[in-house]
Amino acid sequence: SRIRQGLFLVLRDFQGLTQIILPQDEAHSHVRKLLSNAPVESVVRVTGIVSSRPPGQENPKMPTGDIEVKVETAEILNSCKKLPFEIKDFIKKSEALRMQYRYLDLRSFQLQYNLRLRSQIVMRMREYLCNLHGFVDVETPTLFKRTPGGAKEFLVPSREAGKFYSLPQSPQQFKQLLMVGGVDRYFQVARCYRDEGSRPDRQPEFTQIDIEMSFVDQAGIQGLIEGLLQYSWPQERGAITTPFPSMTYEEALADYGTDKPDTRFGMKIVDISDILRRSDIQFVQNALSYPHGTVKAICIPQGVVSDEVMDVICRPDGSLKSLLTKLLGKEQQSELIRALNVQVDDVVLLAAGEHKRCSALGSLRLESADLLEAAGMTLRDPTAFHFLWVVDFPLFLPKEENPAELESAHHPFTAPHPVDTNLLYSDPTKVRSQHYDLVLNGNEIGGGSIRIHNAEQQRFVLEKVLKEDSEVLSHLLEALESGAPPHGGIALGLDRLISLIVGAPSIRDVIAFPKSFRGRDLMGNAPDYVTPEELEPYHIQVSWPVAETEAKKN
Amino acid sequence: SRIRQGLFLVLRDFQGLTQIILPQDEAHSHVRKLLSNAPVESVVRVTGIVSSRPPGQENPKMPTGDIEVKVETAEILNSCKKLPFEIKDFIKKSEALRMQYRYLDLRSFQLQYNLRLRSQIVMRMREYLCNLHGFVDVETPTLFKRTPGGAKEFLVPSREAGKFYSLPQSPQQFKQLLMVGGVDRYFQVARCYRDEGSRPDRQPEFTQIDIEMSFVDQAGIQGLIEGLLQYSWPQERGAITTPFPSMTYEEALADYGTDKPDTRFGMKIVDISDILRRSDIQFVQNALSYPHGTVKAICIPQGVVSDEVMDVICRPDGSLKSLLTKLLGKEQQSELIRALNVQVDDVVLLAAGEHKRCSALGSLRLESADLLEAAGMTLRDPTAFHFLWVVDFPLFLPKEENPAELESAHHPFTAPHPVDTNLLYSDPTKVRSQHYDLVLNGNEIGGGSIRIHNAEQQRFVLEKVLKEDSEVLSHLLEALESGAPPHGGIALGLDRLISLIVGAPSIRDVIAFPKSFRGRDLMGNAPDYVTPEELEPYHIQVSWPVAETEAKKN
Repeated sequence: SRIRQGLFLVLRDFQGLTQIILPQDEAHSHVRKLLSNAPVESVVRVTGIVSSRPPGQENPKMPTGDIEVKVETAEILNSCKKLPFEIKDFIKKSEALRMQYRYLDLRSFQLQYNLRLRSQIVMRMREYLCNLHGFVDVETPTLFKRTPGGAKEFLVPSREAGKFYSLPQSPQQFKQLLMVGGVDRYFQVARCYRDEGSRPDRQPEFTQIDIEMSFVDQAGIQGLIEGLLQYSWPQERGAITTPFPSMTYEEALADYGTDKPDTRFGMKIVDISDILRRSDIQFVQNALSYPHGTVKAICIPQGVVSDEVMDVICRPDGSLKSLLTKLLGKEQQSELIRALNVQVDDVVLLAAGEHKRCSALGSLRLESADLLEAAGMTLRDPTAFHFLWVVDFPLFLPKEENPAELESAHHPFTAPHPVDTNLLYSDPTKVRSQHYDLVLNGNEIGGGSIRIHNAEQQRFVLEKVLKEDSEVLSHLLEALESGAPPHGGIALGLDRLISLIVGAPSIRDVIAFPKSFRGRDLMGNAPDYVTPEELEPYHIQVSWPVAETEAKKN
Repeated sequence: SRIRQGLFLVLRDFQGLTQIILPQDEAHSHVRKLLSNAPVESVVRVTGIVSSRPPGQENPKMPTGDIEVKVETAEILNSCKKLPFEIKDFIKKSEALRMQYRYLDLRSFQLQYNLRLRSQIVMRMREYLCNLHGFVDVETPTLFKRTPGGAKEFLVPSREAGKFYSLPQSPQQFKQLLMVGGVDRYFQVARCYRDEGSRPDRQPEFTQIDIEMSFVDQAGIQGLIEGLLQYSWPQERGAITTPFPSMTYEEALADYGTDKPDTRFGMKIVDISDILRRSDIQFVQNALSYPHGTVKAICIPQGVVSDEVMDVICRPDGSLKSLLTKLLGKEQQSELIRALNVQVDDVVLLAAGEHKRCSALGSLRLESADLLEAAGMTLRDPTAFHFLWVVDFPLFLPKEENPAELESAHHPFTAPHPVDTNLLYSDPTKVRSQHYDLVLNGNEIGGGSIRIHNAEQQRFVLEKVLKEDSEVLSHLLEALESGAPPHGGIALGLDRLISLIVGAPSIRDVIAFPKSFRGRDLMGNAPDYVTPEELEPYHIQVSWPVAETEAKKN
């Protein structure tokens, strides 16, 4: 790792650092010379005597700070001939350079810690599922068929002209077929694929803890996952308490303006429609005149410290300072203060409009938290882990491009809420689902559902509600007709979960060889060009974009 | 599972069968009716009283044969409406039909057993590696770059025109880069891909137990794997003893005519060149006149019982019956009998020619064993597991298409045998490697090597011996220059290993959703056609073979 004044050097291995004392006597001069001349980051083997450091030379900051090794023999196993940068300056280098030399970055304490902890957590999860709860680890294929509408699936050309495999986004169909096949408890640490083009902090391949069970209900899956996380949680991050709190989708949207609320801090959204209904504020009146018109607000404690957002500020004397105050009566002002529990120097943000969800205030809530923390306040305990189940999602949502048509809020295999089953046939827009999301500190880290196990109901959903061609899923429908047990499951996003546990800013920090945000491997240079001859067995050719074709001509 | 005379039914779950007694009293008539009318393979829930079967009605063949359940309540959770065939006849159906309805086949005792045992064995392997030996489970990318000469790699088109990922055949580069990155003990249950077109009992995606260690030698890896297999070996298959025997590549070829000898039986190949050198047999003399000319033989014990091969037979009076005997002197005949330990009714097969390996006799040895066993003899104990290390492979082999050029016997990262290192620069054809294969009952179930960790040696092998462009591997060469520890590893073929342990005829029997030998998923119908619009983001189009294009026109 480093060498000091020809007197001692510091060896690094995966367990840490060890201080090596170079022999100064003539008999060991060859050893001293060998080690003194070894470039930093070379691989050496030394034998010697472990002894206590002389009094006063201990280093209490190092776990091995009390000892040193007096070298007897030494051997250079591999000399480091080339370093694109000094390892100690590494963290300051650009991420592109770090990714190009990923194998050097991997030597850092943080990446070693992240990868080793990830391995241990996954091992604990396997013990819990496989050894304690009778789950069967089953590998499912990754070369499969394109799912209908699977626009984000990578294609893999086959040797049959025109035919392609696709790399699935999840083993959803296979896990359900395993239930039909009598593998009553399935799990897999599953590699999944998603081609989203360039997106920050997404990876084209990622890993999920994939679970499916027969004869289970929503509470059964939730209890299993709570036990799983508790069992595999690393001690050094403190204990987590179960059961996790639960919140309906409606509540989450109303109180936090998002379906993945960060519950580490308050600043909930409050509906102040009734307070302002009698005001003369024009835009409020406009908003309230619509069918779903509401006025909502959040109160940002000490929001005045960040002057980047502007609205209603509470003065030291308890009055409100705002462009709106002159339009508000005394009564309304104090009702507002009560409803939002406004304190001195708090800032209130209002949003008026026709909203069922309140995503604008939801985003402002998070941005305000960032601004307040940038200004020195602590809103979110960085060592806290707030798990939350979000439940009772709608089964269907209006399509964005054509709101008259419905699409699955999650996927078409999700079962309706037992209370709402009849609504499926009368008013599907009102049906809640048996889907559940697991949220950690405002990040969705998992989702699952009880599935439809009745073939007729599945066919109704596909054909009548979603207006899809059920033919492509005929094997699944046939399977449901062949004695399928009731079943449900969940998938946890492993990369995100681990990054939250270790406090990494990006999932790239918990993946050994991640791709860049453009989906490139900067170390090995993938993807890359291939020759037309290599494409031949797959009966494909490249359609060069016109600009490139023109450029090639010139 | 089945219903009998309206009196009782047999429930099946993953743990086995349970006999249910239908109530015959009037008060439970609805329960009786419900269960009597349930189609076979429906999913039912019953509650009732477990009691001993009446004396004389016990079934000692069933683990639950002593008990029965008297039903109190019953519920049909899902009715089985459609079965493409009766489950009990299932095993007689064609494999194509079984694969189309794989979820039904999965209900069979054998597949449940295979998949569950596989899961348990892998779990034990993880415990051994991760918990007992400090290995780190690291996931490596499957979207990577085509390796030079990687003709069997599937391609995955990217959204950058003309650029492709490829699905690697193994994580070879990544595991070595992890060693350079200081992850000193790596393992992964790795999904690998190989596009070989149609081949019997190969799968386009398969799984290997992938292992790499720093600061290890060949004996270290071998000891680790012996411990791993011993630890994870299922009790019901008996214990395995370690260390495994070892044989050089030269010995294996000389004695068994193959580099993966089945050592469960004898019938070794014997060189009888010297015995026949003085004979007048023309083809023998011809063969012996060549530089590598030899005459070799195997003696098939009781070979006379199978009359499909014809050669030298030992008569009851100890004389030899053969077309050749008249050309052999008495002396030569008895020398032959001694050399091959020929007994009455044994058959001797001869092969004469210019051979370094003796693959013809090696194949005949295996075919003879099959024929003898078909005729009722037991040569190979079906419960025996004979592990064998094959070592000291050549580092390079002459290219088949051009014997003047050399190619790697395994891969270009394999280190030369320490004794032969100097030969690398003078006569590379003579260099043995530090590659080792693990053979079980005549099947190669694993292979690995100590790798080259010296960049100059690696560059010499790539450029001077293999005449390859080292540019595509520049990242690996740079890594070796940046302080790479000495390292080595191995990969075990999990599918083959499990199929041998459970005695399955095909690896398809230990994979939940295998592809057909043409690489098709017969259940979900993959691969499949996609629309030109779906190909557009990937800048590719299908090159239809002319015949099909013509057919489409008409």
